[in-house]
Amino acid sequence: MTQLTRRHLLAGAGAAVVAPFAAPMPAQAAAPLAGKQAPGFYRYMVGSHEVTVVTDGARSFPLTASYVTNAKLEDVGKALEAIHMPKDRMTQHYAPIVVNTGSKLVVIDTGSGPNAYAQTKGELGQFATNLAAAGIDPKAVDTVIISHFHNDHVSGLIGADKKLAFPNAEVMVPATEWKFWMDDGEMSRASKGRMEGLFRINRTVFDALNRKVTPYDWNKEIAPGITSVATVGHSIGHTSFVIASGSSKVFVQSDVTNHPGVFARNPGWAGAFDQDPAQAVATRAKVYDMLVAEKMLVQGFHYPFPGLAYVEKTGSGYLEIPAPWNPTI
Amino acid sequence: MTQLTRRHLLAGAGAAVVAPFAAPMPAQAAAPLAGKQAPGFYRYMVGSHEVTVVTDGARSFPLTASYVTNAKLEDVGKALEAIHMPKDRMTQHYAPIVVNTGSKLVVIDTGSGPNAYAQTKGELGQFATNLAAAGIDPKAVDTVIISHFHNDHVSGLIGADKKLAFPNAEVMVPATEWKFWMDDGEMSRASKGRMEGLFRINRTVFDALNRKVTPYDWNKEIAPGITSVATVGHSIGHTSFVIASGSSKVFVQSDVTNHPGVFARNPGWAGAFDQDPAQAVATRAKVYDMLVAEKMLVQGFHYPFPGLAYVEKTGSGYLEIPAPWNPTI
Repeated sequence: MTQLTRRHLLAGAGAAVVAPFAAPMPAQAAAPLAGKQAPGFYRYMVGSHEVTVVTDGARSFPLTASYVTNAKLEDVGKALEAIHMPKDRMTQHYAPIVVNTGSKLVVIDTGSGPNAYAQTKGELGQFATNLAAAGIDPKAVDTVIISHFHNDHVSGLIGADKKLAFPNAEVMVPATEWKFWMDDGEMSRASKGRMEGLFRINRTVFDALNRKVTPYDWNKEIAPGITSVATVGHSIGHTSFVIASGSSKVFVQSDVTNHPGVFARNPGWAGAFDQDPAQAVATRAKVYDMLVAEKMLVQGFHYPFPGLAYVEKTGSGYLEIPAPWNPTI
Repeated sequence: MTQLTRRHLLAGAGAAVVAPFAAPMPAQAAAPLAGKQAPGFYRYMVGSHEVTVVTDGARSFPLTASYVTNAKLEDVGKALEAIHMPKDRMTQHYAPIVVNTGSKLVVIDTGSGPNAYAQTKGELGQFATNLAAAGIDPKAVDTVIISHFHNDHVSGLIGADKKLAFPNAEVMVPATEWKFWMDDGEMSRASKGRMEGLFRINRTVFDALNRKVTPYDWNKEIAPGITSVATVGHSIGHTSFVIASGSSKVFVQSDVTNHPGVFARNPGWAGAFDQDPAQAVATRAKVYDMLVAEKMLVQGFHYPFPGLAYVEKTGSGYLEIPAPWNPTI
């Protein structure tokens, strides 16, 4: 009706005069696409401790036989399909966390840093940007705790200007990890390729810090309410953490699994990055049995953001159940 | 060592002079807690359509026998415990979406509106704030599509100033729903309490729009790439949508289930808000069997944010598997 009425009204007027109005409006474009994801942070309380999960990004790459070292490529592909991923392409997720204990602002792990941001065209190395979006000033960080000395956990210690990303923070590192990676003898015996590369990256990062770190031991409260727990295998000094406040606690698993859809569902699988595969698998079973028994929340560095989940036991492994997003904290 | 050295160094100096430095630093407080959740929006592409999920919030309330009308309270409590919720307290989630089709900016459902924001102290009625955080101008919205005439879907049509929240938008409503809720005879026969209240709310909302709406039928492309699908039972004209672009599609289920942890896991359960419980249960089975068979993503208004998931069939019902958060879109 509207169109008919409009045509009728226009019919009596001179064509030249009404042309700008009479011509059909060009199909109006909607507002331009935003093309930009929401800021990648999420907050929750553990007692009076405020945890902010801050994603460093996610990265996709072709699945190869080396990704899981003790399973057939075909079976790994099937595992990916079972979690609705393409069978020939893996996507990995990365998320450090920040804990405000009320007296200390603590960062746990730091992401892959600005080099990775450039190399991956922004897929990784988002930690600094998302920290800013979360309103967290790197200069206000009191403590950085490193879980283990792999690139995606330590490289964010150095900023885009090659200066310290957290200039006022004490940097705490697992004593076992520190001893191993800073040992020249170990470095000289490192296998070519991955291990050699990790030694080189660790030397670059920690030399930029003038090797000014505080090594920490296991089973210690290394920051208020944050206790270090040995979960070795993935690396020689790989460490997880319990954040506890009041009657609440969460287990910060670090890399006890990589993507839970692959390695929690198939806990016997060893990843390419597991330094001691048998030990990594044994540690995983122990930790996940504990999470199930204690109905304890787990925060996973390589879980899809925001990475907070419950764990259930299945016939063949474990199933992560993401904790529901709380819109109000 | 550091402490000993410091004490040693200080020992030789005059106490008065060094006092300001020698005194132990007061325990320095960390940066104040942020106390504020991340903006509640999330983006993903369906072909060339950009979808922004925008949370309206979440609300907790004591579980009562009326919440599920055909199950024992004890069994519902067990279902809540099974998804790691307290057995006596339900939390409901609410999330409208915005679809930028490239030629139209379309809002699907609008949340509980500013009255709910005031009544719930900000737990609900967050849609307008989160839209702003997502950079979406309500004035730029071309079309608002309503799935059904329940308070938490329609009340956000009206802004805090009691004016139209989307002043330039065509408001599209299911024809069946429109006929029912605007029928004075139906209103006069409405049962006291809930149904009567819904009639009153719908009259208030749509009278504020001068009843200027465009009723739509089912199985029609009512906006570019957005097709209406009858999924009745929850209400007489309850509608879902398929968003399709290129080879991608997603099923926007509206209220085919409320919280999937309760109603997808227990698909035979009828909710307090199901107008025709038997029909709602039948529709749910049909839709979820289709989602499983087609391995189709579902976007759920009452799923925990961001509400995008795959669905798997279990022995007793359906399990939703949240799609992984993509940090880069």
